[in-house]
Amino acid sequence: MERRSARSYGLWMGELLPGLHNDITDVPGVLVGHVSLIKGYGPLIPSMGPVRTGITAIRPHPGNIYREPCWAGIHVINGFGKSLGIPYIQETGLLNSPILLTNTLSVYDAAQGMLTYLLQENPEIGHDARTPNLVVFECDDSYLNDIRGRHVKPWDGILALNRVATGPIVQGGVGAGVGMSLFQLKGGIGSASRMVPVNDKEYRVGMLALTNFGQLEDMLINGVPVGLMMKRMNHDEILCQVPGSLILVGVTNAPLSRRQLDMLAARAPLGLGRTGGISRMGSGEFCLMVNNNGLELKNSISDWELDPFFKAVVEITAESIWNSMFYATSMEGRDGHVREALPIEEVLCWMGLNSP
Amino acid sequence: MERRSARSYGLWMGELLPGLHNDITDVPGVLVGHVSLIKGYGPLIPSMGPVRTGITAIRPHPGNIYREPCWAGIHVINGFGKSLGIPYIQETGLLNSPILLTNTLSVYDAAQGMLTYLLQENPEIGHDARTPNLVVFECDDSYLNDIRGRHVKPWDGILALNRVATGPIVQGGVGAGVGMSLFQLKGGIGSASRMVPVNDKEYRVGMLALTNFGQLEDMLINGVPVGLMMKRMNHDEILCQVPGSLILVGVTNAPLSRRQLDMLAARAPLGLGRTGGISRMGSGEFCLMVNNNGLELKNSISDWELDPFFKAVVEITAESIWNSMFYATSMEGRDGHVREALPIEEVLCWMGLNSP
Amino acid sequence: MERRSARSYGLWMGELLPGLHNDITDVPGVLVGHVSLIKGYGPLIPSMGPVRTGITAIRPHPGNIYREPCWAGIHVINGFGKSLGIPYIQETGLLNSPILLTNTLSVYDAAQGMLTYLLQENPEIGHDARTPNLVVFECDDSYLNDIRGRHVKPWDGILALNRVATGPIVQGGVGAGVGMSLFQLKGGIGSASRMVPVNDKEYRVGMLALTNFGQLEDMLINGVPVGLMMKRMNHDEILCQVPGSLILVGVTNAPLSRRQLDMLAARAPLGLGRTGGISRMGSGEFCLMVNNNGLELKNSISDWELDPFFKAVVEITAESIWNSMFYATSMEGRDGHVREALPIEEVLCWMGLNSP
Amino acid sequence: MERRSARSYGLWMGELLPGLHNDITDVPGVLVGHVSLIKGYGPLIPSMGPVRTGITAIRPHPGNIYREPCWAGIHVINGFGKSLGIPYIQETGLLNSPILLTNTLSVYDAAQGMLTYLLQENPEIGHDARTPNLVVFECDDSYLNDIRGRHVKPWDGILALNRVATGPIVQGGVGAGVGMSLFQLKGGIGSASRMVPVNDKEYRVGMLALTNFGQLEDMLINGVPVGLMMKRMNHDEILCQVPGSLILVGVTNAPLSRRQLDMLAARAPLGLGRTGGISRMGSGEFCLMVNNNGLELKNSISDWELDPFFKAVVEITAESIWNSMFYATSMEGRDGHVREALPIEEVLCWMGLNSP
Repeated sequence: MERRSARSYGLWMGELLPGLHNDITDVPGVLVGHVSLIKGYGPLIPSMGPVRTGITAIRPHPGNIYREPCWAGIHVINGFGKSLGIPYIQETGLLNSPILLTNTLSVYDAAQGMLTYLLQENPEIGHDARTPNLVVFECDDSYLNDIRGRHVKPWDGILALNRVATGPIVQGGVGAGVGMSLFQLKGGIGSASRMVPVNDKEYRVGMLALTNFGQLEDMLINGVPVGLMMKRMNHDEILCQVPGSLILVGVTNAPLSRRQLDMLAARAPLGLGRTGGISRMGSGEFCLMVNNNGLELKNSISDWELDPFFKAVVEITAESIWNSMFYATSMEGRDGHVREALPIEEVLCWMGLNSP
Repeated sequence: MERRSARSYGLWMGELLPGLHNDITDVPGVLVGHVSLIKGYGPLIPSMGPVRTGITAIRPHPGNIYREPCWAGIHVINGFGKSLGIPYIQETGLLNSPILLTNTLSVYDAAQGMLTYLLQENPEIGHDARTPNLVVFECDDSYLNDIRGRHVKPWDGILALNRVATGPIVQGGVGAGVGMSLFQLKGGIGSASRMVPVNDKEYRVGMLALTNFGQLEDMLINGVPVGLMMKRMNHDEILCQVPGSLILVGVTNAPLSRRQLDMLAARAPLGLGRTGGISRMGSGEFCLMVNNNGLELKNSISDWELDPFFKAVVEITAESIWNSMFYATSMEGRDGHVREALPIEEVLCWMGLNSP
Repeated sequence: MERRSARSYGLWMGELLPGLHNDITDVPGVLVGHVSLIKGYGPLIPSMGPVRTGITAIRPHPGNIYREPCWAGIHVINGFGKSLGIPYIQETGLLNSPILLTNTLSVYDAAQGMLTYLLQENPEIGHDARTPNLVVFECDDSYLNDIRGRHVKPWDGILALNRVATGPIVQGGVGAGVGMSLFQLKGGIGSASRMVPVNDKEYRVGMLALTNFGQLEDMLINGVPVGLMMKRMNHDEILCQVPGSLILVGVTNAPLSRRQLDMLAARAPLGLGRTGGISRMGSGEFCLMVNNNGLELKNSISDWELDPFFKAVVEITAESIWNSMFYATSMEGRDGHVREALPIEEVLCWMGLNSP
Repeated sequence: MERRSARSYGLWMGELLPGLHNDITDVPGVLVGHVSLIKGYGPLIPSMGPVRTGITAIRPHPGNIYREPCWAGIHVINGFGKSLGIPYIQETGLLNSPILLTNTLSVYDAAQGMLTYLLQENPEIGHDARTPNLVVFECDDSYLNDIRGRHVKPWDGILALNRVATGPIVQGGVGAGVGMSLFQLKGGIGSASRMVPVNDKEYRVGMLALTNFGQLEDMLINGVPVGLMMKRMNHDEILCQVPGSLILVGVTNAPLSRRQLDMLAARAPLGLGRTGGISRMGSGEFCLMVNNNGLELKNSISDWELDPFFKAVVEITAESIWNSMFYATSMEGRDGHVREALPIEEVLCWMGLNSP
């Protein structure tokens, strides 16, 4: 069965309207690229660990982001993570590198690739100009992936940065999401977007989630504890999960200040809560929000006009997470570990909805 | 119709079991007292503003809390509030006063009452011992209440501190909740509790919410956008709400450290998200978590055993908020302002549930 | 001997030039007022505790600050304090009330006075407009003062707000500083200012300190451990001090954003360090920085031009603290407790400087 | 002239007594290793950039720190930095990797080396155990060093980790300090220690600083503005410095909790202030404090006993910074850039001290 978005099954995904693709690339200028690394089969080829990992690149705008940085805000939901570049954004509110997502032990390789890329593009770095702050986020895909093998190489980072494109983007077990698990099912990359009308203008907010958290019994879909139902019925044999993580990267073209972006990012947990997330111990959860419309804030927006943006962030946080699961297909990884895809038909049935 | 809890209508309120009363007093030692101030009718007696306010006291344990302080953690969801005593708890992790809840302009009166109480009880304060840190939380009830009249007096604070009792507690438009609004309907005081089994012991976690936030269209009940349904059908004439707030006070008898209590408090937004809250601009939202079991942490609990507590906090945050609405009855206040009670029958019908 | 500023004795106070009065009122628009409450003598009149306290008001500009709020930043050096109004400033970056300083147990009385004042001045508050966030800072003067007597009344707050004036201001044991101790000597109110040239404009930064911290042996003056010298020579009999506090209120007329004001406030500990402060346990230490030049940031200043402001803040933090001690005279308080004035001649001699 | 410590010239370095070597290795178990990379001469060999960099390793204890982690606290003075591993420590309070210091663009290479080392030592990582959080701090040495050349390789990280030894350690322009500048003179690695008597026990606190900040005119030595004197007399031709940084790593063998270590780290700015630092824009400044005595806190120390530790941290922060300058010798680097050593004789003369 072809996998489709949560919304396509008639599930209510919120009050605001999505953009054309209902993904992060609905924000003009945003580019996304995936490098998926899938090689080998665990028990069969012991000499080479099964590779179930990858890297996803997000460029907030097509330009040279080192020279044309963006305002950014960050919210730490659960700081249990090894992502790179967070303190600098907390201090300065500036994003001056592209964004890479990958597995926990490959953040340094990914950063090496990005650094090579940026040094080549900007000969002034470290000569008569300051150094960029490399932003590389991670989740731990070691349940399926041979993470010790460090299969992501610096050139994969460069490749992902070069492979970026406009949407619609591929979602599910792709790029950094290849080996990720959500609620002990298959997770990965999910995305969603909203149009936000303010002051006779229409702005966009998009989110991309890398999902790798939760126990099955936590999962809610539109308030229905389908995970608990699954666990009690026929899935109680699922293996315990290594503590996971959640990375949320949002972009907007609204002229929001760094502080306003912090405020938007701080609404992400409200969306996470809708999906049943409880931010378990060991789950590093972060939300980065970027304004890709330049440092000059023309037609700036007052704090009292932010409520529609808050609503948008809450809605696309939840929808991105759900989408990562609706799109992902089953995957077998190391040591016979398997993550099954969300059984959509079954779930819809429990929710009292017929599959269209 | 007598008002009852959300749970009593068969709504799913989570995976964990509640305590006997399903309120904060299920945590042994916790005492709660209300002083409700309801006088005058807006348009009829113009010489005296309609009083729709009150004060609620929470004592984490029956002892002298100045001399036997508690570990406490705090999480600021949206710092837009004028509550007293927060920086000290952030620095020291200690709660050494009872907790009062009241309206925004009455926090100083309430604090005066509490200070008089504590100075009388503890002659050493300010003489050869340090001063206590008074904790008084607030929401703005000025939509219904003549808040400028400052009708809460210091003796009401003392009265509330003396009126505390074990549960079950009264919920809805009572105490500090008399004049509060939730999703543009009537809110107020709500509560819930959970039993958390860890290491062959069973601990309790209880929450008390003072709810005063949200637009009608934000409201979710078990994932169903009933607020949006109400708004679109027959309630679109509801007046705009003054920006509100949400106070969450949790207590546990588990031997959790101040840092672990911070971690619990940080899970409150995940529960708030389930109710549809988007933490609008101007809505001061805070969660305080207290361990009432003494500063010595016997049988201490490792961080890796906290997940059931996290789940409990998420569940009781949502249930407390919903309960405040299910219990509250309609209230008329100043200038003809009215907050209607949640139309439970109607809501259950939309949700596909029959009222029992 | 008339008390004079630290600078007047030839001590080096930094690289930047001070303003005309070398106090906070050198920033155009800033007004300061003191109410000093000194009554009774401890051992002689037991029926009435000796009153050694007061209240100091700072108005960042002469206008209605509720209607014309200011950008503000705050830095918590040591959050062990009971001051009012901090979380709101951390969230919004707005100061919309005057600032009062007083003793720890009188913050609620002072707030009551300020609230009465603001409600009278602004009939819209709590009716169809939001409530102000009252900022009242405190230090514990109970070593000299009968703090339990709560001798500061709401009308003293109103009086201080009405008594504000341009400079030069009175420093030393005055207003909120009447009963305060610094390095176990007499402290109180100190102030200093600097002129900061940026972009062909000259801005001002002023600081007012309420000093109540430290042990004698901590004290440094221009790097010389004169406190340690005093302790070893003839002052080792000084009674142990109740843990103190330090309040720093800075104002500038430069068009700095809330984030930039946070950055300025974060440099205050660097100045505190020069005076020998070690931020002892129990010493609540806060720095508030205010831009009194309107919310619109015309001719805004880039982060890369902030260094002279950082230097100014460091210098005036140290000079304000030293000035509070150089100006203060000896004071006897409750139970025979005495705080002696800094022995300036002696100190200058040890530092190798002759008194002029 | 052989370079010696600041203290050896009779300068007053504080009230508490240092340990045997007056460096971080006075804390039992602490090991430090340097790899200095000095190759090529800028203008002469243009094909190969002059290498003026290195790497310094600190192991808090000789054991396997991944399996025997330490409590740690962190304080961000100025978050303008690209160091790795900070959010995890802020969340968990755990240090589970050794600590490496190097230049800004080499943190990823250093991390690669450390990761290889840890994976080899701990085969369970990423297999059935969690991943470590790699801590790598950085300063920007590009004024002297060909930082774009990325001359630090992963094996240098491994080498530094293997080369660690007990003290006395080498200070000045060594290891990560080879290319660093302090107050526009030569800086690098400095260290100091104190003995702290508490409860009939004597604990140690040690600090290691990597110094790379400040303009000449900022520099204070024992309160004397010798930097300003130098600038006005004969050094005004010094080239403008690329914005720098300061890394402070402290270790104690006292049984302090993660929160107490945070409190100690928060006192570092008070020591930095004594040296004249003003935390200029662009200067990433961090203090990490580690307890190397095991996670079980036997004979735990109350917050009210921390003052001597606070004093120790303030003193060794200042002394470490000064020592880095007293020990460092002049260095020529890329493009003819030169950092001269502190002219000790001259400075002592201005301070009224004769060189012994």
